[in-house]
Amino acid sequence: MSYDTPAPATAPPLGVGMVGYAFMGQAHSQGWRTVGRVFDLPLSPSMAAVCGRNATAVRAAAGRLGWAAAETDWRALVTRQDVQLVDICTPGDSHAEIAVAALEAGKHVLCEKPLANTVAEAEAMAAAARVARRNGQVAMVGFNYRRVPALALARHLVEQGRLGTVRHVRVSYLQDWLVDPDHPLEWRLRREHAGSGALGDLGAHAVDIAQHLVGSPLTGVSAQTETFVRERPLAGGHGDERGTVTVDDAALFTGRLASGALASFEVTRVAAGRKNALRVELNGTLGSLAFDLERLNELEFHDDTAAAAEAGFRRILVTEQDHPYLEAWWPPGHGLGYEHTFTHQARDLVRAIAAGTTPAPSFEDGLQVQRVLAAVEESAGKNSVHTLVEGSPESTAPAGSATPAGSAASAESTA
Amino acid sequence: MSYDTPAPATAPPLGVGMVGYAFMGQAHSQGWRTVGRVFDLPLSPSMAAVCGRNATAVRAAAGRLGWAAAETDWRALVTRQDVQLVDICTPGDSHAEIAVAALEAGKHVLCEKPLANTVAEAEAMAAAARVARRNGQVAMVGFNYRRVPALALARHLVEQGRLGTVRHVRVSYLQDWLVDPDHPLEWRLRREHAGSGALGDLGAHAVDIAQHLVGSPLTGVSAQTETFVRERPLAGGHGDERGTVTVDDAALFTGRLASGALASFEVTRVAAGRKNALRVELNGTLGSLAFDLERLNELEFHDDTAAAAEAGFRRILVTEQDHPYLEAWWPPGHGLGYEHTFTHQARDLVRAIAAGTTPAPSFEDGLQVQRVLAAVEESAGKNSVHTLVEGSPESTAPAGSATPAGSAASAESTA
Amino acid sequence: MSYDTPAPATAPPLGVGMVGYAFMGQAHSQGWRTVGRVFDLPLSPSMAAVCGRNATAVRAAAGRLGWAAAETDWRALVTRQDVQLVDICTPGDSHAEIAVAALEAGKHVLCEKPLANTVAEAEAMAAAARVARRNGQVAMVGFNYRRVPALALARHLVEQGRLGTVRHVRVSYLQDWLVDPDHPLEWRLRREHAGSGALGDLGAHAVDIAQHLVGSPLTGVSAQTETFVRERPLAGGHGDERGTVTVDDAALFTGRLASGALASFEVTRVAAGRKNALRVELNGTLGSLAFDLERLNELEFHDDTAAAAEAGFRRILVTEQDHPYLEAWWPPGHGLGYEHTFTHQARDLVRAIAAGTTPAPSFEDGLQVQRVLAAVEESAGKNSVHTLVEGSPESTAPAGSATPAGSAASAESTA
Amino acid sequence: MSYDTPAPATAPPLGVGMVGYAFMGQAHSQGWRTVGRVFDLPLSPSMAAVCGRNATAVRAAAGRLGWAAAETDWRALVTRQDVQLVDICTPGDSHAEIAVAALEAGKHVLCEKPLANTVAEAEAMAAAARVARRNGQVAMVGFNYRRVPALALARHLVEQGRLGTVRHVRVSYLQDWLVDPDHPLEWRLRREHAGSGALGDLGAHAVDIAQHLVGSPLTGVSAQTETFVRERPLAGGHGDERGTVTVDDAALFTGRLASGALASFEVTRVAAGRKNALRVELNGTLGSLAFDLERLNELEFHDDTAAAAEAGFRRILVTEQDHPYLEAWWPPGHGLGYEHTFTHQARDLVRAIAAGTTPAPSFEDGLQVQRVLAAVEESAGKNSVHTLVEGSPESTAPAGSATPAGSAASAESTA
Repeated sequence: MSYDTPAPATAPPLGVGMVGYAFMGQAHSQGWRTVGRVFDLPLSPSMAAVCGRNATAVRAAAGRLGWAAAETDWRALVTRQDVQLVDICTPGDSHAEIAVAALEAGKHVLCEKPLANTVAEAEAMAAAARVARRNGQVAMVGFNYRRVPALALARHLVEQGRLGTVRHVRVSYLQDWLVDPDHPLEWRLRREHAGSGALGDLGAHAVDIAQHLVGSPLTGVSAQTETFVRERPLAGGHGDERGTVTVDDAALFTGRLASGALASFEVTRVAAGRKNALRVELNGTLGSLAFDLERLNELEFHDDTAAAAEAGFRRILVTEQDHPYLEAWWPPGHGLGYEHTFTHQARDLVRAIAAGTTPAPSFEDGLQVQRVLAAVEESAGKNSVHTLVEGSPESTAPAGSATPAGSAASAESTA
Repeated sequence: MSYDTPAPATAPPLGVGMVGYAFMGQAHSQGWRTVGRVFDLPLSPSMAAVCGRNATAVRAAAGRLGWAAAETDWRALVTRQDVQLVDICTPGDSHAEIAVAALEAGKHVLCEKPLANTVAEAEAMAAAARVARRNGQVAMVGFNYRRVPALALARHLVEQGRLGTVRHVRVSYLQDWLVDPDHPLEWRLRREHAGSGALGDLGAHAVDIAQHLVGSPLTGVSAQTETFVRERPLAGGHGDERGTVTVDDAALFTGRLASGALASFEVTRVAAGRKNALRVELNGTLGSLAFDLERLNELEFHDDTAAAAEAGFRRILVTEQDHPYLEAWWPPGHGLGYEHTFTHQARDLVRAIAAGTTPAPSFEDGLQVQRVLAAVEESAGKNSVHTLVEGSPESTAPAGSATPAGSAASAESTA
Repeated sequence: MSYDTPAPATAPPLGVGMVGYAFMGQAHSQGWRTVGRVFDLPLSPSMAAVCGRNATAVRAAAGRLGWAAAETDWRALVTRQDVQLVDICTPGDSHAEIAVAALEAGKHVLCEKPLANTVAEAEAMAAAARVARRNGQVAMVGFNYRRVPALALARHLVEQGRLGTVRHVRVSYLQDWLVDPDHPLEWRLRREHAGSGALGDLGAHAVDIAQHLVGSPLTGVSAQTETFVRERPLAGGHGDERGTVTVDDAALFTGRLASGALASFEVTRVAAGRKNALRVELNGTLGSLAFDLERLNELEFHDDTAAAAEAGFRRILVTEQDHPYLEAWWPPGHGLGYEHTFTHQARDLVRAIAAGTTPAPSFEDGLQVQRVLAAVEESAGKNSVHTLVEGSPESTAPAGSATPAGSAASAESTA
Repeated sequence: MSYDTPAPATAPPLGVGMVGYAFMGQAHSQGWRTVGRVFDLPLSPSMAAVCGRNATAVRAAAGRLGWAAAETDWRALVTRQDVQLVDICTPGDSHAEIAVAALEAGKHVLCEKPLANTVAEAEAMAAAARVARRNGQVAMVGFNYRRVPALALARHLVEQGRLGTVRHVRVSYLQDWLVDPDHPLEWRLRREHAGSGALGDLGAHAVDIAQHLVGSPLTGVSAQTETFVRERPLAGGHGDERGTVTVDDAALFTGRLASGALASFEVTRVAAGRKNALRVELNGTLGSLAFDLERLNELEFHDDTAAAAEAGFRRILVTEQDHPYLEAWWPPGHGLGYEHTFTHQARDLVRAIAAGTTPAPSFEDGLQVQRVLAAVEESAGKNSVHTLVEGSPESTAPAGSATPAGSAASAESTA
């Protein structure tokens, strides 16, 4: 028998409208196209419309990426009847305006990271999200690396207590695309568009994943930043014209989490040979974890309760059916890629919308990361002095030296 | 401005009909859904119809996977007007009948590996493909691992002569899903459906990739096979009922390529802890290569012409824009996954159809692999004696011992 | 207070006489010099005399390496009163004569591997050792890799049953010093001195470690060998003179152990970029092990009884106080090197001599390896046909194909 | 012929006297015993005497470790006629007194790291070394990791300009022996003996290797330290008695080198599963290097001038004959261990003494490291504020934030 019409999907539709269709827009599109084909969802996402300023380009992108319609004005997009969720994939300087408008138009919002370029913008967005939440809307920020299965497993192991109390969290995020001194002065190198450089781009991920894995916020930081190449060719310039780079190439900072853990961060775009090396290590009283985004299907786990003669970091290939997100993919050992994080993000967001729950990371989470980044820049401008993160809970450990026997109150109990 | 209709795609359509929608069918569907969204194609693949025997199940699968129609009879599918390409994702025992019928119906064919369960079937398929080729049809076999970017790069390096003369090729393909003695007696463990066990499933990949990378066929093999667990629970059985496993759990074989290279193979489904470890190493007079499918974004390359003090296996992260297939994906360091091989396969096949060229691997290639597998089984049944592969070119090296100084003719020239 | 004389050592002396002072002699000397400084020993080894044919050279070597005297005739050395143990570090063609004479002179013997160049020689040595054993003498063959702590730990884990029944053992030993076609025709490339090439040099280690780790002998093999570069410059030759290489560059063989495990071997001296890659993997019903001599302080262990979501190969850094041989060395993480295996070998031999026990590997073990190597050469000369190892126990599994359901008797019990 | 007396060594003797015979004393003894057996030396080291307070124990140690005599008073040792070189292996609190006395007694001095517990002590030592240098004496501090062949190769590559300008240096030194809260309160945990904790023990190595590899000193640091377990069982205590830990468990700091490179350090003794993980990474404008002491025979090198499609971190197995220190050891691939660094240190020191040159690292180098450690502690006590290292050259880059476009003077020239 031949059936020209497939069996009808029973899930009600969820119209998605996306703003921006560059790198992030393409990755989100792959997520939206795929999520309903792979996962069982309570709502069926439909790719209603994509928005960009150039009519020809946005129409071509719509056709290529699979969006049913194209818009040239984001204000039109966020009020479309067939759009219930606005997905913001533009540079950081437009996040606040679009997100607040979309929330006010009654839409759910997914916004790329970093949430905004300034704390003030992020605060406005979080406030708008709080108001909208009362109307049943949700707002989520796109820290997609939480959805790498290996990092989701890492969080699970920490939650289960397999690491005991985490004492060290060490995150580096190393790329190398700015080693070339002739890389042009694109928008990511201009403060007015990007807010900051490696700090906002890579540091935002690094801070979010550290806080998320440990389950505790940073309370203060000590930082330095650097711009090694201070002039670059103008993107649309002629010949030798160069302009000034107004963001950092690299940022180093240390800090403390409310839990008492020490944290160390290094983010850079000039680490020759490192392509996308988001590396995370956690050391706890009962075990340790290590991860490298360049080997994203693997998590290294050391169980310190094992007999010393048999202990060691084990390479968990995070492709088993009972690993996070893996129930819908391929058999064990058949690895996933970078783009799957966007499919997973879409899955979790759709489920939260259907269930009426608040998805994580929320705009509040995004705001908190923004405050950490602001503290980093403030510390870097003040001779690296330890700088408190606005709105942080009281740290359980003092800043700076906690070594002398002054106040033992902040040490872990050894009982 | 709002544009309800995207800009029209200019590429003419290519209707695809797929038979089978289990693991392989899902992977192929992901490839067909994605290929035109990511790559520039001269034809626009449309997912016309999927076929399966169970009407309810196939309709659900069509809806889930994105096929426009469903069929319950493959004979109907292969004659549909809207289908120009038949994609065969069924177990090996039905490949020949479907492929030959599809070719005779004037369709292009993509057939999953192994090409068939017997040499006779594979010969019939290759013959049908030869006839169809004269009509402008193409036939391709789904050795998708040739489309892992790292392995495509490996082939490229060999072709460029970066390894010099390859002397050793070593391939192991290790999985562990049959370690559990209670894994049921599914179709893959029955000779009548699967043809063989690890040999046909994993060994076919191993043989194809070895021959493809070196660019030379195996001329003979010496083999042994083993079934460690000879009875397993019946798939639909009650309680303790067990049936006999009629295929191998593991196969070991050595051989020679026409080029004179020595080859070593080990394939098994009982290597505890190895999930999908297709490991390849080539050693040549000028360099070496190593690969592990569990780390599919990486290729290790040793350049023996480098100064000894600086030489070493370098880990190439195969995610650069000028790496094979990478021009359309993400920035460097943002890794791909297993399923991408099916998108790449679809790309190459669509381009070959449009260009009127013969895609590789062809049915002839698939037949040659089948003859190697038959020689493996023959050798294993004859006390491992070196057994020639049917139809092989005369090897440049004798079988067995080539060590004594008898005939120096087969040694590499040292001039 | 100043004490000009150290406190006297309480252990009685054990005089050692060594024959040969090239690479192996230097490594053994380091072992003898060090063992009593690091380990507690029941006998105190004294380096009595070293023997070599060139008087000037052997005297210089004695001074350099720390031997109290020098001899130019090994017959004089093996009868010295101050020598109780003869340590043979010469090429294989002289092993039998020296070892038998030393045993007949009432000495203990340590003999480098391979035990001999022929089975007949090895049989004579084993017979002499049996006779001498009745007089309380011991004889040991220098398969030093058993004393790599990581491999000693591997054996320990197998003995404890942590792997269950071992089904696969896979050993490759890859070097690259013969990639250069102008490497001269040294003694290791002449059959009359070395017996065979990669086979005797590397294959002997590979076979011994496989059998030792599993605890079961090979019963039969199927093999091929190859000499890629058949003429090389004469070592002392003039200009362009070349001579014929009369040993193998590489050997590949598969086989079965008496236990029923399948074994796969590949040894070569032309694997570009591989310096000393003795790689071992065991796969059992309960777990797996992997090792690479290029990372000799590490053992990878997969425990298949762990929950799938947490399982993986763990990298055990074999430097803990309770790891084999580590009690006397440095704190955890402070790795050992290649030469330490000779110190460990000396420790175990001295303790066995003092205790009156038979040290392993014995000459019988060396003979058995020699018989495997002979079977490899025989199989390689007979078209790779499966060839039984002389004197092997009846294998529990048939040769060649054990896959068809003919005789289930050889399969593992699934009860 | 039999020669009872080895050929006489032609090198004149160099008498060594060692103070302390615990972990470091044992490691140094292995170096002294071995160096003349392996390397060609212009002077022949003789192990004249070892010193310790307990007469019975030191005599036993002398016998065990191979020292000709034993002393119970270091003041006697440093004035022995048969001692020309005093090797100090005691805890840091006695370094200054012994070293200064030995130098004043006309001896050469090798002193374990850290050079001293305070800057004042280190200054006195450096001053004494300067005076003694005029008399032809030399003084060296035992930063033995400079003599790991892989790190010596790393320095060589930097010197050759293979990395271009180094922008990032990242060093972590992770151990885990204090994870156990019941590890006793040994001398290394008491400020009066050890000076500091992980900082002086591990941080001294980390700072030295960073400065040495880049070839530029740290000019300032921003730091925090922590003691997680503040009370531990008394070493000789009864039952539950605990005492206060007065040193740090961990220290994190960032800083700048005079060259303008950014530096990041993390040292800890509570990183579960990390045994001796001294990890170093350098990123330069032309390449990068990475090293891990747990794999001490390997260096990873990325050459950024290679074509992108073939670039990657290559694993150099640092065991080639033309690698630093390897000319005297084993064939390629036969790895060295931790203790070899002490043999190499002895070689370089003996050669410097014979040649009349100043060996590195000098006491000035040790003093500079001490000043960095002091700045770390000062910064940690002052809320992590960037703190200048005493006596540093003017940094070429400002502290804290160098990102805003204020003064471009500190950026690298892009010309």
